[in-house]
Amino acid sequence: MTPSDLNKAAQSYEHLACELFDGLKNNTYDGIGITRASYGSGEQIARDILANCAQNLDLEVDYDAAGNLYMTLPGELRSAAPVVIGSHLDSVAQGGNFDGAAGIISGMVACAGLKKAGVIPARDIRVMGIRAEESAWFGVSYIGSRSALGTLPSGTLDAAKRVDTGQSLSHHMEDCGCDPAALRNGTIYLPPDSLHAYIEVHIEQGPVLEEAQIPVGIVTGIRGNRRLPSARCIGEYSHCGGVPRSHRHDAVIGVAELVSALDELWVEYEASGKDFAFTVGKFFTDSEWHAMTKIAGEVNFSLDMRSLDREILEVAVKRVLKLTENIAGRRGLNFELGQFTEAAPGRMDPKLMTDMSEGAATLGIPSMKLASGASHDAAAFAAAGVPTQMLFIRNANGSHNPDEAMEIEDFMEATRLLAWWLAYKA
Amino acid sequence: MTPSDLNKAAQSYEHLACELFDGLKNNTYDGIGITRASYGSGEQIARDILANCAQNLDLEVDYDAAGNLYMTLPGELRSAAPVVIGSHLDSVAQGGNFDGAAGIISGMVACAGLKKAGVIPARDIRVMGIRAEESAWFGVSYIGSRSALGTLPSGTLDAAKRVDTGQSLSHHMEDCGCDPAALRNGTIYLPPDSLHAYIEVHIEQGPVLEEAQIPVGIVTGIRGNRRLPSARCIGEYSHCGGVPRSHRHDAVIGVAELVSALDELWVEYEASGKDFAFTVGKFFTDSEWHAMTKIAGEVNFSLDMRSLDREILEVAVKRVLKLTENIAGRRGLNFELGQFTEAAPGRMDPKLMTDMSEGAATLGIPSMKLASGASHDAAAFAAAGVPTQMLFIRNANGSHNPDEAMEIEDFMEATRLLAWWLAYKA
Repeated sequence: MTPSDLNKAAQSYEHLACELFDGLKNNTYDGIGITRASYGSGEQIARDILANCAQNLDLEVDYDAAGNLYMTLPGELRSAAPVVIGSHLDSVAQGGNFDGAAGIISGMVACAGLKKAGVIPARDIRVMGIRAEESAWFGVSYIGSRSALGTLPSGTLDAAKRVDTGQSLSHHMEDCGCDPAALRNGTIYLPPDSLHAYIEVHIEQGPVLEEAQIPVGIVTGIRGNRRLPSARCIGEYSHCGGVPRSHRHDAVIGVAELVSALDELWVEYEASGKDFAFTVGKFFTDSEWHAMTKIAGEVNFSLDMRSLDREILEVAVKRVLKLTENIAGRRGLNFELGQFTEAAPGRMDPKLMTDMSEGAATLGIPSMKLASGASHDAAAFAAAGVPTQMLFIRNANGSHNPDEAMEIEDFMEATRLLAWWLAYKA
Repeated sequence: MTPSDLNKAAQSYEHLACELFDGLKNNTYDGIGITRASYGSGEQIARDILANCAQNLDLEVDYDAAGNLYMTLPGELRSAAPVVIGSHLDSVAQGGNFDGAAGIISGMVACAGLKKAGVIPARDIRVMGIRAEESAWFGVSYIGSRSALGTLPSGTLDAAKRVDTGQSLSHHMEDCGCDPAALRNGTIYLPPDSLHAYIEVHIEQGPVLEEAQIPVGIVTGIRGNRRLPSARCIGEYSHCGGVPRSHRHDAVIGVAELVSALDELWVEYEASGKDFAFTVGKFFTDSEWHAMTKIAGEVNFSLDMRSLDREILEVAVKRVLKLTENIAGRRGLNFELGQFTEAAPGRMDPKLMTDMSEGAATLGIPSMKLASGASHDAAAFAAAGVPTQMLFIRNANGSHNPDEAMEIEDFMEATRLLAWWLAYKA
């Protein structure tokens, strides 16, 4: 077998990929976009469509206690540590069809190509359809992957409630035929040190590849984050006519000053080549109390800070604490920040990254290196110590919306690279 | 008659003032604070209580087409231009008992004092209970005073709707036995050039007198304003992970930058002794669309800017337009500001101001000069060209809330000063 034979074999499954994307879209369309709630019906439908196809492709199909799907192409040495190719089954509400699904289907097509080309890989290739990656449903990320790896914090099964139903994670798992009791008892389906590598293909959620006109990205790392989901700034409501500047406790000015200061910090970091981003996605006065002629006595806000570099995140957290203390002192305000939630940056494996660059060059696939600003299951695998690599597919219009636009040609470029790696490097 | 006789005569009506305040409170208490809706039952009740008392005091009682109450102490020359002593009958919802009412009752007590002391003033003194000063009910200020002066913009009678009922101003006027048809036909009850002066006593709505421990303030001017009741900044919603700084259109950062820049402008103005204040009382992302991990594509906000100096307001408006243009250009945002609403600053009459300082010195009443940040009917009289002066009474805890705290002793100080002016200067 030559790389060219493998290429042709993989390429012959382009129509299958299209059929699967269409099947997913037609069966999980909500009237505006795609909805596949974590441990909900859309996610279950997606899993069944893919499992059914895997059976037709003669891959081994099984599930773990958290309901993750595994579609395995057996390797030469079945006792060798397997490679996991995965991405997530779920979507946000009114989201897009490719976010998550593209990575699973890429793995399936790569395995089908290997099989057709007569390649028996050195070790098992396990294509994983992962549950509940999106934090939109349970307020927690990577539920499926961390359940499999044994790294989901204890208590999450009962504490996490789905935002649309109010029911617990374990309740919804049981509804989907999963076995939360086994997870509670410490069953670990994918012990991290039993894995050879984790590879995830995913659409890019930003505009970098689209603007560079490059179909495939080789990810250099996944940004970690520090977040304040629900912070408050408390001032004092008063009639805006009579109160001099020195006597105001204006929560809007206080939080605006914080936002402007963080924007300046970002400009500084960018100028010195440091990776950082922050977003205040929520910023709102209380609609029951606010008025045009009333000084705002309260602002609610959220904060999301990201970086590839854990140290930069720690410095940024300290900066937020110092800024809010300073603003509060000067303006007579009180910040109730709550606890920073924390996700460590996900390191990509240097050897895998080099492999992928080599493969792209060999196959003549234009590629570039870029960081992942968004979170992915790959971060959970990297955090558990599994050698991890991500590939991005060019995608216009961002993600988490019905307008995401991945071209099937770009999808096939990433898939050919994946198949090459599985055949020659796994 | 000596000033001391007049003093004693006025002072003897302190109990009457207390009775009136108690009567108003008991009859317009809403369970939390005081509610006297403009052209609503609370305002009507207050008017009737005061009118009834005026009859007992043997003042002449009558009403104009807008339902304003006039309680007249006849002067020596009845054809001479009268002095109007006024303030408003209405309150905000769950407001305080003294905001508005204090000024009317002060005028009544001063007239009663004059009468008792045997003083016949040079000209008629007309104590005016003014309707609908608060903009909270119809979204329009000074409805009663401007109706009397003939300066209420045509169309307001039908266009203004009360926020709680949705019914038009003319509908509510009719409900209260007023004659909006006469106003529509151009009837003017108080032609501005027929008035000698307008004097308004009012509780201070800020902390200046309270902190200076001075009972009476002599107002130097009423701040005018320029307002944006409902401005928007439009950006672009996107997943906050994948979008680099250069590609963000973050409405929260855009409006925060505007707020911070206006705060700096205020600091500059303050340092150079220029009168200015701004308030962004409303600042909110859309609760249906915003999320911690989503760049904000829209912010709604309000802006209120005040100054005693019309030119400073005009410069500030230009600054807002320039800032938003600049921010929009740099950040790829779109500001939809709407139209600035406008209220001219209210000039106090230099002669009246000097009179009041002289009176306070003569009577030994501690007083200080201060600007009025809040709006008052006095601004409508000043704008119509009537020589106008306001006196403030010390008041803890601000206004527009049930906790406003005016001491009756301070009320009597202002009232003694008013009586002195009526006897010796009117």
